[in-house]
Amino acid sequence: MDIQNLRFARRFDGISGSAIREIFKLLAVPGMISFAGGNPAASALPDETCAELAKELLLDKGKILLQYGATEGYAPLRESLVPYLKDRFSFDCAADEILPVTGSTQAMDLLCKALIDPGDKVVVENPTFLGNMQAIRLYQAQLLPVDSDEDGIRVDELEEVFKREHPKMLYVIPTFQNPTGRTLSLERRKKIAALASQYGVIVAEDDPYRDLRYAGDELPSIKSFDTEGWVAFMGSFSKVISPGLRVGFLCANKTLLRKCTIGKQSSDVHTANLNQAIVDAYLRRGLLMPHVKEICQSYAQQMNTMLGLLDKCGGVARYTRPQGGLFIFAELNEGMDAVQLLTKCVDKGVAYVPGTYFYADGGHMNTFRLNFSMPSVENIKIGMEKLNQVFTENA
Amino acid sequence: MDIQNLRFARRFDGISGSAIREIFKLLAVPGMISFAGGNPAASALPDETCAELAKELLLDKGKILLQYGATEGYAPLRESLVPYLKDRFSFDCAADEILPVTGSTQAMDLLCKALIDPGDKVVVENPTFLGNMQAIRLYQAQLLPVDSDEDGIRVDELEEVFKREHPKMLYVIPTFQNPTGRTLSLERRKKIAALASQYGVIVAEDDPYRDLRYAGDELPSIKSFDTEGWVAFMGSFSKVISPGLRVGFLCANKTLLRKCTIGKQSSDVHTANLNQAIVDAYLRRGLLMPHVKEICQSYAQQMNTMLGLLDKCGGVARYTRPQGGLFIFAELNEGMDAVQLLTKCVDKGVAYVPGTYFYADGGHMNTFRLNFSMPSVENIKIGMEKLNQVFTENA
Repeated sequence: MDIQNLRFARRFDGISGSAIREIFKLLAVPGMISFAGGNPAASALPDETCAELAKELLLDKGKILLQYGATEGYAPLRESLVPYLKDRFSFDCAADEILPVTGSTQAMDLLCKALIDPGDKVVVENPTFLGNMQAIRLYQAQLLPVDSDEDGIRVDELEEVFKREHPKMLYVIPTFQNPTGRTLSLERRKKIAALASQYGVIVAEDDPYRDLRYAGDELPSIKSFDTEGWVAFMGSFSKVISPGLRVGFLCANKTLLRKCTIGKQSSDVHTANLNQAIVDAYLRRGLLMPHVKEICQSYAQQMNTMLGLLDKCGGVARYTRPQGGLFIFAELNEGMDAVQLLTKCVDKGVAYVPGTYFYADGGHMNTFRLNFSMPSVENIKIGMEKLNQVFTENA
Repeated sequence: MDIQNLRFARRFDGISGSAIREIFKLLAVPGMISFAGGNPAASALPDETCAELAKELLLDKGKILLQYGATEGYAPLRESLVPYLKDRFSFDCAADEILPVTGSTQAMDLLCKALIDPGDKVVVENPTFLGNMQAIRLYQAQLLPVDSDEDGIRVDELEEVFKREHPKMLYVIPTFQNPTGRTLSLERRKKIAALASQYGVIVAEDDPYRDLRYAGDELPSIKSFDTEGWVAFMGSFSKVISPGLRVGFLCANKTLLRKCTIGKQSSDVHTANLNQAIVDAYLRRGLLMPHVKEICQSYAQQMNTMLGLLDKCGGVARYTRPQGGLFIFAELNEGMDAVQLLTKCVDKGVAYVPGTYFYADGGHMNTFRLNFSMPSVENIKIGMEKLNQVFTENA
């Protein structure tokens, strides 16, 4: 039988892979200045420290690290996450309420695996991280977008949707959101925790950018206001140590976490031990926060340079003013099309991601996302001038 | 709302996690001799080589390895897998027909994600690896067990099932099968490749033990007889380098592989780069086969010791005589119950896995699986004597 007749699973109907990936292919041109990615700067990747740690850990505990590990995770890492979560995210969590995962994308996948049947409803911020929208869509859930403003997702609208639609889950990025860079206000954090337990909705709180704060005061996590276990917290070391190591974690109610753990047995058995042990060493030896402080100095300068130039950029109607993270979200004048203009920008040697991809229902053609962590201050200046030229010509 | 009211996804109905895990908890007693695992021996784990490689690779290419990688995999590894597959598994495969994965369990998961809708039928050997049965069950497929004999899965029965049931997929472990240790004959390999394309069934060929051969001649993979792309090949470095690194690979028809790649974007974005680079170094520098040769010498001795003692073990009616791999499968006299007897054995300080767990429909209570790679020759002698005592008393 011709393999072309092969029928794929229905979960792939309408799924074509990440649109951003196609943009990334355009960026292979030498000299291209990319504001499109969401990657840490090369200078922020601690290659020498990781080299020393990897060698030391493998010589010291190689017979354990190279052997099969528990699906539940590398025990020392689970233990060292407890005080880290208390200190950085303001919530108490026992070691056995934490599941190390292969990047926090896996946490999203496991939550969906545990909870979502086809047709179930999942509320997402509008706009939000498109990678996790795809993860949710692959479980054949119906996405319910709820608009956000300067203070994050609108909780008045959220309550109505909870009441009317009985969703299974809310996916939310509370701090320096992707793509907007916005931070959810304290009041709304409290309100979301309360709504979750009032309406029986699991909140998937995704907080990978929190440590990258360049201004303003820290806010406690939504999870810190959760008294009944409805908030599942997803963390990541991709933005503060290394995305290539693929280590994140999920904290959740024990019954839910057990389902996720069984799901993980069949996903990848366990997260690679060496990678977990490197992150554990960062936490246990106090290497993380000094490293984060160093990164933040540089990222703050990059963000402020970009914000200053956006002020003077032709065609730009408005943009967010984040206090941290990796992204700024901007709007062009009404009628301008960020998808069409991307081609002209790429021809000039600069790239961004059109905002439409981050909206569950598309539209918003005049929006775009800028990343400031990858390009140097010098390249931010050059790249913003290129954007200014294209946008001014087409305003 | 009380979190106890949380409703989980239907895919978890009837799924309680691996039964083997519960047995492993019994084994934490000091001095326990375990024939229950499927782990490499501690002495087979190359901690010093991996320590040196990890350091060297991170110092040399750390800025690449610690950054996000492509979902499609680390390009050098995909390239070095091409000659490895040709040499070891006798099939031609281009680099872009190979997807590195986070352990070959992920390959199974991604194939199911790409292909299986609830109610679809998947044929499995009877008995087979229970981890992957769970993976398939989580996609709500119907398992169709087909018996195996000394030459592996019975192809006469298989053809009837293909004809009658129109299954979506066949899952098969052709070499030193888990749990039986049996190897599929050359004729049956050819026949399965032919049946797959005749009836339009994807064959998931899982071949992690092939390099652990202690006697007899190598056979080409089923994939090597596949002319139309119906065979998807899953490989692993867990048994020959390290399970803790979590590196395997999937080779498949490009259209199918693309669906698996999109599925992987939402599973874990990509397999950790450092881990892929360590495996790449093993292949590229010719470190793998000398290491395998060393392991095999020791495992052969362990297997032969165990086989010799099984000959004299009370209560044992028959057992397989593998030419490699990690497992021997045995049958007690009719009426003896390997689940009940396990408790007595554990009390005496020795453990195995009852065979019933490997049968899709259970039963076969008098069967059990023995692993010989983890225990030393000395402990195999002691452990087999303990089994002999318990079985003789209860025969």
